Amino acid sequence: MTDFPQFRTDPITGRRVLIAPERALRGSDGPCPFCEGREAETPPEILALRDGSPPNSPGWRVRVVPNRFPAVRPTAPASGSHELIIECPNHVASISDLPVERVAIVLGVVRDRFRELRKTWGYAQYFKNHGAAAGASLAHAHSQIIAMAAPPPALVEELFTGPCPFCALIERELADGSRMVMSTPNLVAFTAFAGRFPYETWVLPRRHARHFEELSTDELHDLAAMLHTIVGRLESVAGAPAYNWVLHTAPWCDDRDFHWHFVILPRMSGIAGFELGAGIFINPVAPEVAAARLTPPIAIGELAMGG
Amino acid sequence: MTDFPQFRTDPITGRRVLIAPERALRGSDGPCPFCEGREAETPPEILALRDGSPPNSPGWRVRVVPNRFPAVRPTAPASGSHELIIECPNHVASISDLPVERVAIVLGVVRDRFRELRKTWGYAQYFKNHGAAAGASLAHAHSQIIAMAAPPPALVEELFTGPCPFCALIERELADGSRMVMSTPNLVAFTAFAGRFPYETWVLPRRHARHFEELSTDELHDLAAMLHTIVGRLESVAGAPAYNWVLHTAPWCDDRDFHWHFVILPRMSGIAGFELGAGIFINPVAPEVAAARLTPPIAIGELAMGG
Repeated sequence: MTDFPQFRTDPITGRRVLIAPERALRGSDGPCPFCEGREAETPPEILALRDGSPPNSPGWRVRVVPNRFPAVRPTAPASGSHELIIECPNHVASISDLPVERVAIVLGVVRDRFRELRKTWGYAQYFKNHGAAAGASLAHAHSQIIAMAAPPPALVEELFTGPCPFCALIERELADGSRMVMSTPNLVAFTAFAGRFPYETWVLPRRHARHFEELSTDELHDLAAMLHTIVGRLESVAGAPAYNWVLHTAPWCDDRDFHWHFVILPRMSGIAGFELGAGIFINPVAPEVAAARLTPPIAIGELAMGG
Repeated sequence: MTDFPQFRTDPITGRRVLIAPERALRGSDGPCPFCEGREAETPPEILALRDGSPPNSPGWRVRVVPNRFPAVRPTAPASGSHELIIECPNHVASISDLPVERVAIVLGVVRDRFRELRKTWGYAQYFKNHGAAAGASLAHAHSQIIAMAAPPPALVEELFTGPCPFCALIERELADGSRMVMSTPNLVAFTAFAGRFPYETWVLPRRHARHFEELSTDELHDLAAMLHTIVGRLESVAGAPAYNWVLHTAPWCDDRDFHWHFVILPRMSGIAGFELGAGIFINPVAPEVAAARLTPPIAIGELAMGG
């Protein structure tokens, strides 16, 4: 039984892994399958923002398609759904090269997919791989959603009951200030006190809220502006590194409390033998130094409202 | 206080990281500092296998030196000792290009260092980074020991009391056979049932033993032969990937039981947004398929005894 995706649990540690043989088929040869005009290279779209053009044809701003090389399948032992969000029709690699409004449109599509996926699944992991060192096999700007039956370990360990530790953390970081990167009336961004990677940055809504997909239009626009700005700053101060971003949001199948947030994980330091053997990440850039470099020279309000 | 290595703990998850600003200074420009004749490029040696030549001069087979860019320091908040084992005098990158006896000599040096480090520290993490994707900044064959006051999380989660889960696992894997890679009278090697990486292979002594440094001469030679053979097989069947190997052995400051073992972690699949966001590794090669490919066409006995 090694042909279909399956979850396995390590007999010593209880660590879960996903054995996904179809992922081995991925390649990056040939013309970009995500570019406008190559809609036939992807499976038929799940959703697209179009101004009247027919499905799976040119004339779209954002497309959502099933992943051709899924890590999970609806009917496999590791049941789930693996979707790709193609973030722009042209061959642009970085969201910092798109207008901030386009980032807001992408996040709106993610929100819409979450509102749909919660009808079927217990949790959805939204994430972005940018650059080969962050696991991207294609350069064209895209991100991914893997929906599954139950929340994964990295999310479960952040669920809580009682007072919200994220609300408390926001208060502490605002008061301390040494790791603050930017803030708006709706959101705050700071480098993680115990960041695993150089410039690891967390973005959280000030308002306590369990589910990302319930964010307001104002929060959505501030989030787009923050991600756009922070990625742009990373590119100018840290040599345009590969990065991941990941969303942590409350599962739909668990009543415990949560406070949704994004984590930006730049990938200029490797994950080597010490990290894997000891389970401790080595971060060569102090988070306070990283915050000082990431803080934009002009205020977020001007960026968020700008073009 | 951001200039010295320090451990930090994430306020939400309790995850520990090591903030190590000196690691940012690493570079790989210029001639290889590990080659014979360039002894002045490294700090003075801690130990070297020499036939009468003076310290820090040419004429050695293996050298142990302090890491110039340590992740830990004896007197820093993250106290510890960070040593490099330079595995051969010539500019050879892969241990598969060395005679198997030289691998045994390296492992004997590691054993000797562990016997010394246990007098001062609570735990030592031995590991190897081979290739850039595995975190190596220099190509010349080397490995590392980071000794510290207390065992790290990845080791603590494998400590146990009561019947040994590793002994039970060895019995099950020998009986099942589908993940067996090789075995000798002293050791067994099999691909991990829930391997995080393609071809992830565990090597364990059949004899229950807590501490690596107490291994017998026979076990040491079998271990050298197995690591040499498995790395050679990896290179021929999997495109000479980058890899890490890590040793897990009992801490010196904890009375719980353990069963020491090596883990070989080939790095042809990335650690991307899903792995970091969900905490679940995606492994695109089923461990049973990997085992069939790794199994050497001739028996280990012949290799172990050969030149």
